Amino acid sequence: MPTVLSVSGSPSAISRTSRLLRHLDARLNSHGHRVIKLDVRTLSAQALLGADFQHPDIVATAELFALADGVIIGTPVYKAAYSGLLKSLLDLLPQDALAGKTVLPLATGGSTAHVLAIDYALRPVLSAMGAAHIVQGRFVLDRQLNLREDGSLDIKPTAAEALHRVLDQFSDALGQAPIAAAS
Amino acid sequence: MPTVLSVSGSPSAISRTSRLLRHLDARLNSHGHRVIKLDVRTLSAQALLGADFQHPDIVATAELFALADGVIIGTPVYKAAYSGLLKSLLDLLPQDALAGKTVLPLATGGSTAHVLAIDYALRPVLSAMGAAHIVQGRFVLDRQLNLREDGSLDIKPTAAEALHRVLDQFSDALGQAPIAAAS
Amino acid sequence: MPTVLSVSGSPSAISRTSRLLRHLDARLNSHGHRVIKLDVRTLSAQALLGADFQHPDIVATAELFALADGVIIGTPVYKAAYSGLLKSLLDLLPQDALAGKTVLPLATGGSTAHVLAIDYALRPVLSAMGAAHIVQGRFVLDRQLNLREDGSLDIKPTAAEALHRVLDQFSDALGQAPIAAAS
Amino acid sequence: MPTVLSVSGSPSAISRTSRLLRHLDARLNSHGHRVIKLDVRTLSAQALLGADFQHPDIVATAELFALADGVIIGTPVYKAAYSGLLKSLLDLLPQDALAGKTVLPLATGGSTAHVLAIDYALRPVLSAMGAAHIVQGRFVLDRQLNLREDGSLDIKPTAAEALHRVLDQFSDALGQAPIAAAS
Repeated sequence: MPTVLSVSGSPSAISRTSRLLRHLDARLNSHGHRVIKLDVRTLSAQALLGADFQHPDIVATAELFALADGVIIGTPVYKAAYSGLLKSLLDLLPQDALAGKTVLPLATGGSTAHVLAIDYALRPVLSAMGAAHIVQGRFVLDRQLNLREDGSLDIKPTAAEALHRVLDQFSDALGQAPIAAAS
Repeated sequence: MPTVLSVSGSPSAISRTSRLLRHLDARLNSHGHRVIKLDVRTLSAQALLGADFQHPDIVATAELFALADGVIIGTPVYKAAYSGLLKSLLDLLPQDALAGKTVLPLATGGSTAHVLAIDYALRPVLSAMGAAHIVQGRFVLDRQLNLREDGSLDIKPTAAEALHRVLDQFSDALGQAPIAAAS
Repeated sequence: MPTVLSVSGSPSAISRTSRLLRHLDARLNSHGHRVIKLDVRTLSAQALLGADFQHPDIVATAELFALADGVIIGTPVYKAAYSGLLKSLLDLLPQDALAGKTVLPLATGGSTAHVLAIDYALRPVLSAMGAAHIVQGRFVLDRQLNLREDGSLDIKPTAAEALHRVLDQFSDALGQAPIAAAS
Repeated sequence: MPTVLSVSGSPSAISRTSRLLRHLDARLNSHGHRVIKLDVRTLSAQALLGADFQHPDIVATAELFALADGVIIGTPVYKAAYSGLLKSLLDLLPQDALAGKTVLPLATGGSTAHVLAIDYALRPVLSAMGAAHIVQGRFVLDRQLNLREDGSLDIKPTAAEALHRVLDQFSDALGQAPIAAAS
């Protein structure tokens, strides 16, 4: 059973990015994946920004990356790129923390003008960390994600369909990983 | 037997990029792949730069992309990015010409200062064309590639080793493609 | 009187990018600039794609870049980046062809999803060529540019206003160049 | 007298990036500029990563940006891009925090393979924040910067010369700003 680490890089307490990832967890479970949730904002801010590689939060997180077969990286788009919070964590991981892993990049933002931030800003960083397979990602407009009062998320049908497609491709790619390792 | 389209985007008649791709063909053959060679510089320049989608050269090339399971994209790095020649061809292909395909990006250049051109310039374009899996690419320094007088290529051992590693990863990823399609 | 080289990188015979640049020429003239027009598609395709640095078209174009104080680079966005035609020309110019010059990047495209192509794809290339000052550029949607039957261009007011603003900033920056050179 | 905000985005207590910026301050002073120093790592980590726009540290920093005529942005290169610490601060500034300002991007790193991170990763973010003029930046290799035991910095002559050249261009560009504003 492949293990997926699902990482939200949103600094907001009430975050569309975070809710979106949690929504996708259920579908991953139904595909037979074990999902581990990680909200970067719950880690020690002091450790993240102080280059404290030995802090228990950072050590534990590096272990989560090490044991994951697949990683979902979710981030809001700020200033035409990923969040500083997300990058603060990536900076503290080993250079090859994504080696051999399948990665799904997801981003949320207020305007379609930010769509290319996934391919031009986020992917190069994930590639530099050795990712074996970065599947086609997805940018979701904030207005396609409505936070209901009960805390659940309402996703517009067109966005949901596209998300499920990239998630299924990610899931398929994960299923192949052991075969690749055996060859 | 997977089919690999091996594309050289170098405008030079005597090109390290082109020779490098030809050198890798033999290894791909030994992995059981059928290799089709394409030197973009042999296509009609008038068609490439005149947006002539109906030109026989362009139509035939689009068909080669359509039937390929995997594509190797090789380019020299000029002005911090891929060659204009390569992009001229990509511009004339369908928007989703790489959908469902495995792609290996390779680049050559005179300085390690150009290494990031693969991830920041070339990959976003390949991703925009729908590539299913862009494996880890490789940048090779010109001085690691010596053209012998008999036309053959002498690759420095460290470069050869790295190239064979990414080529084998590409080959493995290609072998998985049919499984993905069946799932 | 500063000289501006206005370069269209569109491969289309009937091009919004090209018409847009021609429209802006009049405003530059009214600012007291001398404008030289260049449609890359009128240069020898064989020279552009064959790395023929000695071809008269390429030699003459390199001279135009050398004498210009400012350069407008206009391109359609294809496959998330500038046109191959434009890059083919840039590849043949000296590495420092934009040194000491003020540059205005403009792009046209069918969707706002391509907006970031200016900053992530085009600017790094212009910067690698030594541009002293790349002013804020502008992305214009195709649907904001209507080609009239008489060949003239009708620009939607909001787009026209934004274009005039970046053009005036470019013009101001050009006016400063001699002062910088004297310091 | 133009005011320059000199920002170090290094998370390390003993940082080459930070020492480098402090070294350049003296030269800026000799050019007649007032220099304000900012080490992002001294700001509240909780505020930076918690999207706390109202925190006194963030409010005060936003004011420093608002009053500066020029901004130097210094960052180490990690994972092929700027530091997460730097981006955490930029994320909390107004979208147009660099509007009308002259910006000098500087980066340090262990390998020339990271050179393009300035143009492909950092500049697009600075451009998205409205920077009027991002002058040619500079990447400095760690081994060109020796921290002496007394805390001072020894810069290799070739690196020092290149740094002084981009600093002087930045200084010249700053001197022009008032003229531009008046036109």
